[in-house]
Amino acid sequence: MRPAIDLNSDLGESFGAWRVGDDEAMFRLVTSANIACGYHAGDPVTMAASARLAVMHGVVLGAHPGYRDRVGFGRRALETSPAEIAAEFLAQLGVLDGIARGSGIRVRYVKAHGALYHRLAADEQAAHAFAEALARYDASLPILGPPFSALERAADATGLRYAREAFVDRGYVADGSLVPRGEPGAVVDDPTAASDRALELAETGGITVDDGSRLELAPDSLCMHGDTPGAVELARAVRAALEAAGVELRSFA
Amino acid sequence: MRPAIDLNSDLGESFGAWRVGDDEAMFRLVTSANIACGYHAGDPVTMAASARLAVMHGVVLGAHPGYRDRVGFGRRALETSPAEIAAEFLAQLGVLDGIARGSGIRVRYVKAHGALYHRLAADEQAAHAFAEALARYDASLPILGPPFSALERAADATGLRYAREAFVDRGYVADGSLVPRGEPGAVVDDPTAASDRALELAETGGITVDDGSRLELAPDSLCMHGDTPGAVELARAVRAALEAAGVELRSFA
Amino acid sequence: MRPAIDLNSDLGESFGAWRVGDDEAMFRLVTSANIACGYHAGDPVTMAASARLAVMHGVVLGAHPGYRDRVGFGRRALETSPAEIAAEFLAQLGVLDGIARGSGIRVRYVKAHGALYHRLAADEQAAHAFAEALARYDASLPILGPPFSALERAADATGLRYAREAFVDRGYVADGSLVPRGEPGAVVDDPTAASDRALELAETGGITVDDGSRLELAPDSLCMHGDTPGAVELARAVRAALEAAGVELRSFA
Amino acid sequence: MRPAIDLNSDLGESFGAWRVGDDEAMFRLVTSANIACGYHAGDPVTMAASARLAVMHGVVLGAHPGYRDRVGFGRRALETSPAEIAAEFLAQLGVLDGIARGSGIRVRYVKAHGALYHRLAADEQAAHAFAEALARYDASLPILGPPFSALERAADATGLRYAREAFVDRGYVADGSLVPRGEPGAVVDDPTAASDRALELAETGGITVDDGSRLELAPDSLCMHGDTPGAVELARAVRAALEAAGVELRSFA
Repeated sequence: MRPAIDLNSDLGESFGAWRVGDDEAMFRLVTSANIACGYHAGDPVTMAASARLAVMHGVVLGAHPGYRDRVGFGRRALETSPAEIAAEFLAQLGVLDGIARGSGIRVRYVKAHGALYHRLAADEQAAHAFAEALARYDASLPILGPPFSALERAADATGLRYAREAFVDRGYVADGSLVPRGEPGAVVDDPTAASDRALELAETGGITVDDGSRLELAPDSLCMHGDTPGAVELARAVRAALEAAGVELRSFA
Repeated sequence: MRPAIDLNSDLGESFGAWRVGDDEAMFRLVTSANIACGYHAGDPVTMAASARLAVMHGVVLGAHPGYRDRVGFGRRALETSPAEIAAEFLAQLGVLDGIARGSGIRVRYVKAHGALYHRLAADEQAAHAFAEALARYDASLPILGPPFSALERAADATGLRYAREAFVDRGYVADGSLVPRGEPGAVVDDPTAASDRALELAETGGITVDDGSRLELAPDSLCMHGDTPGAVELARAVRAALEAAGVELRSFA
Repeated sequence: MRPAIDLNSDLGESFGAWRVGDDEAMFRLVTSANIACGYHAGDPVTMAASARLAVMHGVVLGAHPGYRDRVGFGRRALETSPAEIAAEFLAQLGVLDGIARGSGIRVRYVKAHGALYHRLAADEQAAHAFAEALARYDASLPILGPPFSALERAADATGLRYAREAFVDRGYVADGSLVPRGEPGAVVDDPTAASDRALELAETGGITVDDGSRLELAPDSLCMHGDTPGAVELARAVRAALEAAGVELRSFA
Repeated sequence: MRPAIDLNSDLGESFGAWRVGDDEAMFRLVTSANIACGYHAGDPVTMAASARLAVMHGVVLGAHPGYRDRVGFGRRALETSPAEIAAEFLAQLGVLDGIARGSGIRVRYVKAHGALYHRLAADEQAAHAFAEALARYDASLPILGPPFSALERAADATGLRYAREAFVDRGYVADGSLVPRGEPGAVVDDPTAASDRALELAETGGITVDDGSRLELAPDSLCMHGDTPGAVELARAVRAALEAAGVELRSFA
């Protein structure tokens, strides 16, 4: 049997007059679009445009909530209580779901952004607050996130589906963490190398890391960044390589 | 047959550490609560608290969207296109509905705030954009707003239910507009006078204005402001007077 | 005697992670930089970078205040009182001046942005509030703005210096207003045509408009937009043409 | 010789329509007013009102910068680099100084707010970035802050004056830190007890803590909170007790 995998990307990250990424092109290449919900990026008009692109290209829409820190793009750690995490998550999920309804679709999964993504990967209490809020909103919505994390455990405990993602354009170390930005091998920007990694991840469920050992990630989805120079070219190469190898591209949601 | 009427108030207007109004008391007195959705007032934690109060006191929750102008409290006219009005309305409706789900309830109607309220009362194109956005979100949700306005016509044209409101604590002139703030008779802050007006509106559907003529408003709901000194006392008197007269208090939604 | 003229551009319009324009290139081409002050665009880190570029390239720093409407980029009319205009203007002037001090320089002039620019051109009361606020801050700072406008009259009445600007990349009609965007001749994006216009403006103080009549603008400064595709190329051509013709490029401030 | 001391309070913490504290009363009682600069609280119109009150009551105006986190009132830790701290501090200092100029006065000192206050008390690198930014802005401006802290050391190293503050309405433990909120003795809200503490601090430079040991704080200023119920009554009692004991009340700045 041929494997199947999802391709996701963080899109809808413009704000007002400020544009970032080539969403028109990326929506043709992914099967799942993580859409910023207005706290770290995005605004109602941008979200409405993303919803229309999702309809047009048959892409599954996901909410991409982050910290309430627009100037920092949600990348800075912010001291927040579990109650704040839950309320601000539902607020962001609700915004995008409300706007999606305006285009006749709904949000079908959630994936956290930036510093909140990292917080939920490691902080059990925050992860539970997040998962329980989602269960109250709609217990049929899956979470997309890092493999074998606090968030995956919280989803399991709450009875939510959890989809694991792996990055095709970031290097991993043997413990499963990413090579820190700025260090050699942190970013994979060569389309051929990224395609090889995508194939290895899709077909074997793991990746060979720098020390030669093998890292099991069991991904349901492969994440490609959408906001860097060359993002579209890399995504196009990855998609073409997966299709050529007979990997089925379909949403996990 | 005894008449029935709804009592509504703008609540949930705190922001972060800034508190306004006595929501705990007002939720005991109204049947419908218009809750700010984060653009001109309100924040996720405040909205979550409002949703819990609505559950506790059996009050119907309404979305109270306004312009994206927090420092101006949504009271300043802002140049916005119909597409912006639609997207920003759905964003605000979605936020509150998302947070309400976290408490097991849903938003059951919408009422615009401040400068947006006035815009929608008079601007046919803006009113249609607003009504059509609501129809795409959930065509079963009614709009609460000013009687015989552009918004009422837009609701009719879109097939939405429309509930008319009248103010118990503001003076009207013969053309149906409010006495401008600062002029004599603009504000009715005496509990007895407000109660008399509430009774007249509930029992006759109209009000006698200063020149002695009668103004027909046919209200489904009476609005009482919640953020002024004496608001709670006035609301308590109005509610008691209506109950004593056998007027049934129930939501229009 | 050779004429002298200033070249200005709206720069520093990035916000957080969102980049707009090629400021590094534009700072090499202008003599005056209008820097966004955080209300419609810009943030402290971006302002600090602009101040360093100003020092590096010997460019004069101007404050570019706008309405408090980031998602609308300050382009939407917003109902504001003269007191709000004055306080929000001083706030923005103070921000940039504070950050400029961190690089050892100061703000040397002010030019309004977007919808505020248009408001001050026509609204005498708003223009006076603006000019009087500047006089209280530092009466030696000039205002850069549209010729023969309410703002110029307010500056005169307040005893402030006023510098007139003309646009090299926008078409004018005979009454001195700009050809509306979307109409033929609204935008001049051909570097040669823009250079010819810049020379005519610098050498004659006026421009020939579409009906063949001559429009006197008496500009002290020529404005070139910095955020459009081709902006740098156009600015380079304009500067080269002026220099080749012996026009001295120097700040009015 | 009679001792002299400054009385400071965090004021100007309203935002738009949201009011907090009784600034009119507090400005009559303090000698130094720490005014929020728009990031965690305050807005240009509120700052302008504070500047007018400072002029009217002869109170010295201080900038009270905080993290860019309005919904959290600057009380939440936020990951910020030294460059961000410096730029955002100068932005806030510049805003208030700009608005103060509109009333003919200037900012005469700075005191950090909330989570930034605590960060600068302990983080040497952040404290140096803050102090160096102030020195570039105006090296004659003193910093008001916690005694014997990283910020005091940074001020010393940068050649800035430093004024120490002690809290009359918060309990201390023997190591010089405050009794955590929620624990017994954390808050001193009895006017007589607060007055006794103020006198002890002003006359002896220290305070007796719960275990009976003496804590030396050598304060130049006593801080009284302005936003709590009873704040005005407490401040009035403290001021009266100091005046009755012959302590001169005057700004350190």
